[in-house]
Amino acid sequence: MAPEKEVAPKEDGQEEEQVVNPWEVSAGKGGIDYDKLVDQFGCRRIDAALVDRVARITAAPPHRFLRRGLFFAHRDLSELLLDLYERGEKLYLYTGRGPSSEALHFGHLIPFMFTKYLQDVFKVPLVIQLTDDEKFLWKNLTVQECKRLARENAKDIIACGFDIQRTFIFTDFGFVGGKFYENMIQIARCVTYNKAVGIFGFSPEDHIGKVSFPPVQAAPSFPSSFPHLFGDNDQLRCLIPCAIDQDPYFRMTRDVAPRLGYQKPSLIESRFFPALQACGENTKMSASDPNSAIYVTDSPKEIKNKINRYAFSGGQDSVELHRKLGANLDVDVPINYLNFFLEDDDELERIKMEYKEGRMLTGEVKQRLVTVLSELVARHQRARAQVTEEIVDAFMAVRPLPNMFD
Amino acid sequence: MAPEKEVAPKEDGQEEEQVVNPWEVSAGKGGIDYDKLVDQFGCRRIDAALVDRVARITAAPPHRFLRRGLFFAHRDLSELLLDLYERGEKLYLYTGRGPSSEALHFGHLIPFMFTKYLQDVFKVPLVIQLTDDEKFLWKNLTVQECKRLARENAKDIIACGFDIQRTFIFTDFGFVGGKFYENMIQIARCVTYNKAVGIFGFSPEDHIGKVSFPPVQAAPSFPSSFPHLFGDNDQLRCLIPCAIDQDPYFRMTRDVAPRLGYQKPSLIESRFFPALQACGENTKMSASDPNSAIYVTDSPKEIKNKINRYAFSGGQDSVELHRKLGANLDVDVPINYLNFFLEDDDELERIKMEYKEGRMLTGEVKQRLVTVLSELVARHQRARAQVTEEIVDAFMAVRPLPNMFD
Repeated sequence: MAPEKEVAPKEDGQEEEQVVNPWEVSAGKGGIDYDKLVDQFGCRRIDAALVDRVARITAAPPHRFLRRGLFFAHRDLSELLLDLYERGEKLYLYTGRGPSSEALHFGHLIPFMFTKYLQDVFKVPLVIQLTDDEKFLWKNLTVQECKRLARENAKDIIACGFDIQRTFIFTDFGFVGGKFYENMIQIARCVTYNKAVGIFGFSPEDHIGKVSFPPVQAAPSFPSSFPHLFGDNDQLRCLIPCAIDQDPYFRMTRDVAPRLGYQKPSLIESRFFPALQACGENTKMSASDPNSAIYVTDSPKEIKNKINRYAFSGGQDSVELHRKLGANLDVDVPINYLNFFLEDDDELERIKMEYKEGRMLTGEVKQRLVTVLSELVARHQRARAQVTEEIVDAFMAVRPLPNMFD
Repeated sequence: MAPEKEVAPKEDGQEEEQVVNPWEVSAGKGGIDYDKLVDQFGCRRIDAALVDRVARITAAPPHRFLRRGLFFAHRDLSELLLDLYERGEKLYLYTGRGPSSEALHFGHLIPFMFTKYLQDVFKVPLVIQLTDDEKFLWKNLTVQECKRLARENAKDIIACGFDIQRTFIFTDFGFVGGKFYENMIQIARCVTYNKAVGIFGFSPEDHIGKVSFPPVQAAPSFPSSFPHLFGDNDQLRCLIPCAIDQDPYFRMTRDVAPRLGYQKPSLIESRFFPALQACGENTKMSASDPNSAIYVTDSPKEIKNKINRYAFSGGQDSVELHRKLGANLDVDVPINYLNFFLEDDDELERIKMEYKEGRMLTGEVKQRLVTVLSELVARHQRARAQVTEEIVDAFMAVRPLPNMFD
């Protein structure tokens, strides 16, 4: 899995057709057209009524990522999953990450922060797949390095606060085999090479490791891949929170599921998290540019410096003009970030109003964002420091989770 | 692996180009042209000098399959493997079977009978791969049925007399994972789809399971796939006895090996075992026709009946003509079978001479073959009856083999 994403804008003169798949996201000049993506993929928008329904069913306020539209699309969330959940059916959560870098930024953590919320409100088991094999296949890294990164990333994931009584974290190099491998092979038999090319865009010069990989990411969608957790319950429903670029994997999985006698997984999908320099949703994150994102390893000074220097502002060029015209919130990155990370709805609305009408300056908004992110990062760093090797081993132990539905 | 093989003669009007790959063997009208195959694949013929050398190095008479040319081709047997063995380097053996049928015929057992000889004379460890995943991918069987067939086939394999102190038998569904999976992924990263198509002839409408499989059969060629046997010794040489249709897998494996820092496996390769109705080497075995082969489950009466009724004879149409012209040994199946299964060189030569010159009749030769095969089958059936579930478990236990080189 690779929930974070660099979005490359098309060069001048190129067609503005957007490409979104697990390894490439390129947008037209106006940024990703999410409406078009939803139509193209065949998933559905999450509307206010669905957010309300989640709140009602879970008897908890919806996560700000949900109520503010970061998680914006779904498959079978209302029709199937919530209906069944209301009738008392159980479900489990599945998410993951391709461990290609050591230091994670906020974009990397978003699916995990949201998954923790889902685990808390639904009180259900969760499997987290670290696709170290995928990263080996796509990046120029050694097996050892991929395995090491997976373990380091697991510490950041655990630091998000998952309940060890309900969470199984695994790496592919560590866990593939047995029933999981049986499911991989069963899935692979249902997908032709032509079909895989249609879904993932492989080329004949791609190595066969790439072609072999989609069943590895599909397998955790089926509970029978985890006999130590779910025993013979091969009809348990699965809900997958992920970024929308992962949709192709699960379109394939949902297509295959009925042929194997399994349930289709449901999905809840996020937009891409914008880079600091982003203009609107035309996110341009660069893995080679540490200034394009706030990392969970950044110091308060680094956070302050990055936001003040690099966060794209929708404010006006001069104070006078700003007081007169106000800020353009649609392209303002600090507002976008506050939208994701400032919990207090009233304060957020107040800031947006003041800023839009020119009464608040960019520097003031940035100052608030620095405080919010510094607190989040500090909290994360404290939590991660508590994650020992033994705790990682405990989360990754192949074990039953006796009270995972309690 | 699928060491046994149906050889389909080309239809009239078709080009006589032979096709030999792990899933298809079709020959021109004159049968398989093995010289052409050796040239095409780039392996080498085993000559008398090499057979002598094996005998000298192992201080044992060469197996009749070797001295009579059933195992007829090799890769790096003389140049590398035997040179190194003489200098005291160790090696291990790897062979396998795709468990697609319950009852095995003699064609199925040949690689195992030969591998047992190699294990006995070289006194080396052996890994036997049962590719239940391959059979699931290529045949319309359930996972459960493939796993059951693998276990049943393991009993017949064990009945060939392998030394439990030096033999590890595994199924892919049971064993894939860990270092074995790491090697699969490393191999897969080295082979493009185009290259795989060139080697194996996949079509775009084939499912991706087929495309994913070659690394599974390649992985046992590298000792690091078996840490419980070989620890950190990732340079141990591997010798693979197999039918020549498996050569494409190991061409690929040998191509990939240096890029992974591994040794190329050496090969010793057999022809195809002819069907009873075969004419010369134009073997036409039909899985749907039980009369095309002698099964190890056949009764003495069935063996007698099949050989008398179906074994293609090179004798003449009448006794008078036969006495005058003698038999054509080149197309005579009973002689071909005796060539493989009658141990006594002198007796074999005598029978061939008498038969060729018309002094022995087809019925007499067939009678001798019936006796030889009935004894072999009876011995196999007795041995197989001794193979309990516990013994299968013991051979398949993932365990160290402490005295495997003694």
